Amino acid sequence: MANEVVTEVKRLDINNFNINDKGGTEEEDIVNPWNVVSKSETGIDYDKLIKRWLQDVFDVPLVIQLTDDEKFLWKDMKLDDANRLAFENAKDIIACGFDVEKTFIFSDFDFIGQCPAFYRNMIKIGKCVTFNQVKGIFGFGDSDVIGKISFPAVQAAPSFSSSFPFIFGKANLPCLVPCAIDQDPYFRMTRDVAPRLGYHKPALLHSSFFPALQGAQTKMSASDSNTSIFLTDTPKQIKNKVNKHAFSGGQATVEEHREKGGNCEVDISYQYLRFFLEDDEELKEIEKNYTNGDLLTGEIKKKLIEVIQPIITAHQERRAKVTDDVVHTFMTPRKMKYSY
Amino acid sequence: MANEVVTEVKRLDINNFNINDKGGTEEEDIVNPWNVVSKSETGIDYDKLIKRWLQDVFDVPLVIQLTDDEKFLWKDMKLDDANRLAFENAKDIIACGFDVEKTFIFSDFDFIGQCPAFYRNMIKIGKCVTFNQVKGIFGFGDSDVIGKISFPAVQAAPSFSSSFPFIFGKANLPCLVPCAIDQDPYFRMTRDVAPRLGYHKPALLHSSFFPALQGAQTKMSASDSNTSIFLTDTPKQIKNKVNKHAFSGGQATVEEHREKGGNCEVDISYQYLRFFLEDDEELKEIEKNYTNGDLLTGEIKKKLIEVIQPIITAHQERRAKVTDDVVHTFMTPRKMKYSY
Repeated sequence: MANEVVTEVKRLDINNFNINDKGGTEEEDIVNPWNVVSKSETGIDYDKLIKRWLQDVFDVPLVIQLTDDEKFLWKDMKLDDANRLAFENAKDIIACGFDVEKTFIFSDFDFIGQCPAFYRNMIKIGKCVTFNQVKGIFGFGDSDVIGKISFPAVQAAPSFSSSFPFIFGKANLPCLVPCAIDQDPYFRMTRDVAPRLGYHKPALLHSSFFPALQGAQTKMSASDSNTSIFLTDTPKQIKNKVNKHAFSGGQATVEEHREKGGNCEVDISYQYLRFFLEDDEELKEIEKNYTNGDLLTGEIKKKLIEVIQPIITAHQERRAKVTDDVVHTFMTPRKMKYSY
Repeated sequence: MANEVVTEVKRLDINNFNINDKGGTEEEDIVNPWNVVSKSETGIDYDKLIKRWLQDVFDVPLVIQLTDDEKFLWKDMKLDDANRLAFENAKDIIACGFDVEKTFIFSDFDFIGQCPAFYRNMIKIGKCVTFNQVKGIFGFGDSDVIGKISFPAVQAAPSFSSSFPFIFGKANLPCLVPCAIDQDPYFRMTRDVAPRLGYHKPALLHSSFFPALQGAQTKMSASDSNTSIFLTDTPKQIKNKVNKHAFSGGQATVEEHREKGGNCEVDISYQYLRFFLEDDEELKEIEKNYTNGDLLTGEIKKKLIEVIQPIITAHQERRAKVTDDVVHTFMTPRKMKYSY
């Protein structure tokens, strides 16, 4: 299911961001998704993009689209099952800690029939994009069903604040879409369409995928539970999966490993630690020690297991507390705490 | 704008209509849109279809779809203008005398965003129809926009009672679609899809088009007001249009006309009288007299003017009484007087 997270940018007027407008002090760089300008010789400090700019804008509405219609159209699956999965999916998202005062989660099957403004944007977008274009962008062919062919308009509509009048009123605001790279084509299409509708182009932040346990060249598969660690795994399952299936960048024997060292680039335990280990200093230490052979494969796996187990357990505990009522609250179209 | 009128069939169980089930008395023919069976040697009395059967079923909900999204997608027109036209169009429909207790009128732009069940049916239909199919049926090409390509699913959805749960509850009921012949392809497609979704195939009644004033081989045109009589025309405009523009099947001179007679087949005044003159005996008399030359072109035109003027005037008077509030009532999703 393609979760698309749309963060609307509250206090940013993109027209005011240009080379002559440096915000705070003269010395500061301009770093926002629409404009990156630096006066310093060392170039842009991209940390600003993440740390300061996102911090600035984080007090904005967050809209999360659950595309159960996409799931139904692409998979051999019943509509009600796709809809129910979206609801379960919402529980995992909520368990990540989103603030109910700032977050609206919706499923297409439930929401589109509650919001005429959303359908209007779907049709406006659908009037701007030809079959030739979606053929080029998504690889659709003549034997694809018309539901799939027009789906990109459904995926694009949440990029525009006018799709959510109960949150944004009549404001025409830019939005930031953090999404996985595989969703990028939808928003390239959206950026193409936006100016023709008088809307702002959405800005994107791409997240990376986790590699499969068997290595970056292999694929996670829903039908093989050993290809990834699930949010529903027990500590014991996690331990077994990492020990048995996480691809190792180490050498064949301890002696050889001590001598030649391990390869962090392909070692899945190290790669997962890059995502999950909070302490960057410790991560550097692990990389150094694994590369020079001081740290053995069994030891780096043990470290990953110790790091992941409490994260998954804590998630499961939070998720257990997410009642159906809580989900319904997140999924109810409402004004939230903002006034536009 | 393609108005599609869907009459749901209340008391008819189509499975009970077969050659062994003759309804009332043994001698009666079975005549309904799903089955036509006659024991008599003279064949079917199709009047039954119109007079008795429709009379039987007329106490059923009537749903009228105003496809303002179609208008917006196909024409160079603003969305709000298409939506406003649908509202004005609804006034003309209501002025025809539909019962507010039995009739639900909706515009796609307003209603689809009020009814998740309708959107679900749109996507279910959109999963069953390929681009190849709509290419064959509607002549879509690769340079058509995706909004058009998926529109047939929007047109098809009202054929299924589950699209209107507030009227039909969970009942799965067959429906009858009286429509103009140009809308037929949509419902052929719908009939193809229906069994795959577990729904009844819609039955159709086709209405004929009025010929243009200049003759059956010419076309009505919105940009040339002399090609047809509008519901907004004054009695004087009607008189002028008929006298000046209605194609005549008469002869060049009175003498020739008396001798050879007129041609009713191409005479627009006669063709219009077929629609508007209630008295069939009088119509036969007119046909006879015009054909044998007793009735002159000026006289048949005069007759048509006298017949049409009060019909249009009466319509205008009824329409003037249709307030915005009345339209809103017709267009509000509601249970109406039926219990399913």
